[in-house]
Amino acid sequence: MADASARPGIRLRPHAKSHKCPEIARRQLALGAVGICCQKLGEAEVFAQAGIADILITNEIIGRKKLQRLVDLAQKVHLGVLVDALSNLNELGALASDTGVAVDVYIEVDVGAGRCGVAPGHPARVLAEALRSYPTLRLAGLHCYHGTAQHLRRPDEREQAIRHAAGAARETRSILEAAGFEVPVITGAGTGSFMLERDSGVFSELQPGSYVFMDRDYAFNELDPGEEPFEQSLFVETAVMSTARSGYAVVDAGLKASSIDSGLPSVWQRDDLVYQKASDEHGVLEIRGDRSLSLGQHLRLVPGHCDPTVNLYDWLVCVRDEHVEALWPIAARGALL
Amino acid sequence: MADASARPGIRLRPHAKSHKCPEIARRQLALGAVGICCQKLGEAEVFAQAGIADILITNEIIGRKKLQRLVDLAQKVHLGVLVDALSNLNELGALASDTGVAVDVYIEVDVGAGRCGVAPGHPARVLAEALRSYPTLRLAGLHCYHGTAQHLRRPDEREQAIRHAAGAARETRSILEAAGFEVPVITGAGTGSFMLERDSGVFSELQPGSYVFMDRDYAFNELDPGEEPFEQSLFVETAVMSTARSGYAVVDAGLKASSIDSGLPSVWQRDDLVYQKASDEHGVLEIRGDRSLSLGQHLRLVPGHCDPTVNLYDWLVCVRDEHVEALWPIAARGALL
Repeated sequence: MADASARPGIRLRPHAKSHKCPEIARRQLALGAVGICCQKLGEAEVFAQAGIADILITNEIIGRKKLQRLVDLAQKVHLGVLVDALSNLNELGALASDTGVAVDVYIEVDVGAGRCGVAPGHPARVLAEALRSYPTLRLAGLHCYHGTAQHLRRPDEREQAIRHAAGAARETRSILEAAGFEVPVITGAGTGSFMLERDSGVFSELQPGSYVFMDRDYAFNELDPGEEPFEQSLFVETAVMSTARSGYAVVDAGLKASSIDSGLPSVWQRDDLVYQKASDEHGVLEIRGDRSLSLGQHLRLVPGHCDPTVNLYDWLVCVRDEHVEALWPIAARGALL
Repeated sequence: MADASARPGIRLRPHAKSHKCPEIARRQLALGAVGICCQKLGEAEVFAQAGIADILITNEIIGRKKLQRLVDLAQKVHLGVLVDALSNLNELGALASDTGVAVDVYIEVDVGAGRCGVAPGHPARVLAEALRSYPTLRLAGLHCYHGTAQHLRRPDEREQAIRHAAGAARETRSILEAAGFEVPVITGAGTGSFMLERDSGVFSELQPGSYVFMDRDYAFNELDPGEEPFEQSLFVETAVMSTARSGYAVVDAGLKASSIDSGLPSVWQRDDLVYQKASDEHGVLEIRGDRSLSLGQHLRLVPGHCDPTVNLYDWLVCVRDEHVEALWPIAARGALL
């Protein structure tokens, strides 16, 4: 990803919500990332504690209690945050002014995901103007993330969605610039579409996260001829615990071991095995070929969705050539608030 | 549940995989439960450490390393475990004999769930006979759990499934008794069907777990006129973080805050709000009525499935009359092995 993002005018700020692991963040920074993204204030606190000095919280932080924590954190690290509401901006601005602490503010624009963010165009200007009242707040740019576009299966569908997103971002920037605001950064993008944002001529910062692990769902995306897929690196190690039923085997990894919101896991390098059904602590495999499975045999599952799966674990067990080389704590696991 | 299980010949052994919380287990025992069930050896170790003295692991434990842990644990607590394979039984028997430690063994019978367990009837006899070679293993009974039956929507569908399960259990017991084996206990059942197992004349132990919390999925089950539903007690507290889009609101609880394997959460006592879409850290609510939502407003979500949701958290925050009365550690969270 560092190589793929090394383009004039493009910087990489990988999303740490995928790995929640300071050791991976440090390696991303060592490879040239300008900082990391977090999704939760609690995550950002964990990464700051671990020495990560430049963090963008790609989310709105609401309410006085949390804003106080945010302002406290901004005294320790270079911190950015999103806004899409005037009341929230005013509350943040007042607290930051009181403390005299600098905070980078990105206006979130809904460029197609239908989640947070103001509509493209003029609403961003209202927020930018309000921001002027708070000397320690800095308009750092626009946050234009189109998450759902990444999971469109066909390259042309993804291209169309990101072209629309880039257009909405460009339009909003023009309105702000015409009103005298500088818009230093337009940030967004994820693993499933980052080449499109990168080459759009509009985005200047990329936030992909899942590329460090990949998952079964991204593997379903058709790729353009020029696109190199990232390799799968995240597996849930599981063992066969029952072979009592002919044609099936039961493994010891179910819903508590692998998030199935994007579908059931697949079995790594075993196309003859179909993970058919998950209950809390069991997975039922259908055996389609002639190779049988023995009790206790280990298999590797490829989770349907890496981010919420990683959030189930306290440690990443790092394996190279079948040897465990390191244990990396998933220090921000469960950081929800 | 303690009241509902207080019937002649019936004992209650609630499943701790739902709550993973020693404080709740202690309260269940204080109300008359004979012990608890766990699903993982690692869970059982946590509960044993917390002073729970009678634990049935309702699962097969495979491989020498884990069986050694199991035998170690059986020196500290009264421990039961399931078997459905001869090789596993022999490995357990040898280790338990070497150590001279008593282990209760339950033969798992597949009474309709299509997961672990030998087929009803004669296969159980092969295991029972092998068990005789190991003086410290005790044939404690049959494990006959029909998990999927609990989520059949109509009472008559559930009744038919459990009638079939009870028949399979009875037939297997008769074969064992005719061969000279005692079958002290037939254990099984869960929150969605326990009245049926209780009244079957076959089951003697009930293992419900979810009743302590309930979830959105169980609320979809039609009830018979005589059945009293358990009340919802598990909520995911969430806050509104964006109201930028008219007709919608975004809350700060997504896939990492609530397991959606049995469907999206609902919003407690707010039928006018529909939780429409979950991403990793966001939930999109559609506002169907006239009541608007304000930024920062708190709502309570009813998770689709309580067990894997509880497994996302380190603490239960216990609230009565809107006051926090206690924080109970979810000590066995993440105990997967």
